[in-house]
Amino acid sequence: MNQSNCMVAQSGGPTVAINASLAGVIQGVMDSDQYNICYGAVNGVLGILNENYLNLTGIVSEDAGAIDRLKTTPAMYLGSCRHKLPNYKDDDSPYVFIFNQFAKLHIKAFFYIGGNDSMDTVLKLSDYAKKINSDIRIIGVPKTIDNDLCVTDHTPGFGSAAKYIATSLLEIAHDTFIYAVKSVTIVEIMGRDAGWLTAASALARNEYNTAPHLIYLPETVFDKEQFLNDVRNMLKHRNNVIVAVSEGIHDADGNYITASKSAVDTFGHQQLSGAGKALEFMVKENIGVKVRSVEVNVLQRCASHLASLTDIEEAFAQGQKAVSLASSGVTASMVTITRTSNHPYTVEYGYSEICDIANEAKSIPVEWINEKGNDVKPELIEYLSPLIQGEVSVSYNNGIPSYMNVSHLSHS
Amino acid sequence: MNQSNCMVAQSGGPTVAINASLAGVIQGVMDSDQYNICYGAVNGVLGILNENYLNLTGIVSEDAGAIDRLKTTPAMYLGSCRHKLPNYKDDDSPYVFIFNQFAKLHIKAFFYIGGNDSMDTVLKLSDYAKKINSDIRIIGVPKTIDNDLCVTDHTPGFGSAAKYIATSLLEIAHDTFIYAVKSVTIVEIMGRDAGWLTAASALARNEYNTAPHLIYLPETVFDKEQFLNDVRNMLKHRNNVIVAVSEGIHDADGNYITASKSAVDTFGHQQLSGAGKALEFMVKENIGVKVRSVEVNVLQRCASHLASLTDIEEAFAQGQKAVSLASSGVTASMVTITRTSNHPYTVEYGYSEICDIANEAKSIPVEWINEKGNDVKPELIEYLSPLIQGEVSVSYNNGIPSYMNVSHLSHS
Repeated sequence: MNQSNCMVAQSGGPTVAINASLAGVIQGVMDSDQYNICYGAVNGVLGILNENYLNLTGIVSEDAGAIDRLKTTPAMYLGSCRHKLPNYKDDDSPYVFIFNQFAKLHIKAFFYIGGNDSMDTVLKLSDYAKKINSDIRIIGVPKTIDNDLCVTDHTPGFGSAAKYIATSLLEIAHDTFIYAVKSVTIVEIMGRDAGWLTAASALARNEYNTAPHLIYLPETVFDKEQFLNDVRNMLKHRNNVIVAVSEGIHDADGNYITASKSAVDTFGHQQLSGAGKALEFMVKENIGVKVRSVEVNVLQRCASHLASLTDIEEAFAQGQKAVSLASSGVTASMVTITRTSNHPYTVEYGYSEICDIANEAKSIPVEWINEKGNDVKPELIEYLSPLIQGEVSVSYNNGIPSYMNVSHLSHS
Repeated sequence: MNQSNCMVAQSGGPTVAINASLAGVIQGVMDSDQYNICYGAVNGVLGILNENYLNLTGIVSEDAGAIDRLKTTPAMYLGSCRHKLPNYKDDDSPYVFIFNQFAKLHIKAFFYIGGNDSMDTVLKLSDYAKKINSDIRIIGVPKTIDNDLCVTDHTPGFGSAAKYIATSLLEIAHDTFIYAVKSVTIVEIMGRDAGWLTAASALARNEYNTAPHLIYLPETVFDKEQFLNDVRNMLKHRNNVIVAVSEGIHDADGNYITASKSAVDTFGHQQLSGAGKALEFMVKENIGVKVRSVEVNVLQRCASHLASLTDIEEAFAQGQKAVSLASSGVTASMVTITRTSNHPYTVEYGYSEICDIANEAKSIPVEWINEKGNDVKPELIEYLSPLIQGEVSVSYNNGIPSYMNVSHLSHS
């Protein structure tokens, strides 16, 4: 029997679109004449190291609505990991194990859906494959709410997070405007080193809502006195000032502006919390109006009920593209998206060599931020706006969304 | 000219359904033969004291979609206040001013949409009307996400908040289950002295999701050692433990379990924050697994994009009922809802004298909480479930919800 199978896994932090890319991979496999079974490794590369697999083409072929439900299910159906592979020159044992697993399961292509750190894994597996002359195709499929991957125009998961932020900001504005007393509301938004998601708060502005009135991004230096002056000036003209702030704002020396700090994660990133609280305290101590901070928290990356249809469709298409790339012989690459027009919004899918992408981060260009560093320019709004268009249709069962059953993940 | 007008205002904290009740009042006025103009006082009773009014029947008659858009717009279209009227025996000047305004504008009925504190205002205005032999009808229309008003089966705004909590909890569960490492997630939910909304987190449970695994309500005494044992026991059986906790949990002496406390508000309620953080620290210090806390915050009361259709329709009907009650001569009362059947779910609208409702609070019956005080019983789920059924249809414009223009509120 001359089987030809493939494998997919998911890694890094959750997004609303990462299962749409998984659904795209499965659909791509079912539509192709190259692969029989699509295996899913549970918990990223750890699933290979632990030999923990699901037969995804099998699951989907027995459940007519699975692809559609998967497209609107938050976080990782296959689970995730934050596992950094060693350099194979230092320790090739995990690589030997992984490629033995690939041989055993007749894997001809491996798809890894993830963000920056996951692309590091794609790069390392690709390098090892090249070293051992393996012809297994290794393809990365991007996702991250941070939108900070290089080369590609934007990343799956970002548009939905942006839609959640814009909608939530508008709803917080309605919540805030009701009292005729001076107040400041600080909304803290995710994005460690890139302010794309915080900038998306500007999409909440409409014919009556000018909030957020101030936006602070990690691409600029945060100055406390300038911030307090900005707030004081805004309070001259209106009762309720709403401030959008990235969790990653920092001073001129690069020190994060936070109320608290904790340990670094396994990739060496500092875990942040409290930029919102820090600004809340600044206003409380120096201006003295009513002030509160809102940390939007994990819901900005997992609220599938409010996903962007554009985002979900693009994520799905990029999963399909990964399969067609592998089928045509591409390897050591990541699927990319190119914006071919903004009016009307059109895109094309392609790929780029993984060595140009992994471990690099894309920030907002400074020319898209105003000179005072407290708002975004129209060019950035133009870039962001198409990404949040369209609403997904989520099914509800007994009052709550009907998502894919993930009971294979939740046990010990 | 023998005009007969009425007035409506909104007060207290925002909910997703309070504008549906306002829309119901306006619709009720337009459908009645008793009243000509429905005035809206801006910022609650302060709007009367400041002579700041909108002509609501005028606005709605010029905008065909206004009633439907108002039904799905969060917070208060008319703005709010937290203004406590003095006892008229101590100081009748605001009452004299208010009833002079009523006379000047030919007001025959006044509708006040709000929660516990607003019903205190309804009671005081009713008492004063009786003292001066005014025949102006004073009717309260309930709302509060806390669901803690007496006499009525449940309050408008609660069902939508409950749907938001249940959906968010399910999405947080998907977000949490992805890592195959032991973790504890604490979700802090609003509700100062009544645990109804925290209890609604149990509606997130479905065929694969058993979260929240522990629920702590303000109706029971919170014991730190018992909590830590509960968490340790849960961690024996599963990787990821999710805890739903009310902001109002307290020890045997009534001291709130919080990480921080601040000043009391104008009604003497202690403003709480940090029960989630407090439990996070307890787990961190005593158990040592990965732990995080999520404060759902203001979005649970203003996320109109995820409103319960049942809630919105009932809120609208209670606004209409208020007008018909006033038309039939009822005064000094609040609209109530009675559940006539749970399978199928049916309700009837009525009223109750305001003196039986104001300044009283309804807690969860202890027989609906399990003996260990860490979960709810099926009877409570039965009570809650019908209230989150059905999804509203929100229109989107340029990627964000199309709500009512509230520019009359946001300026200084």
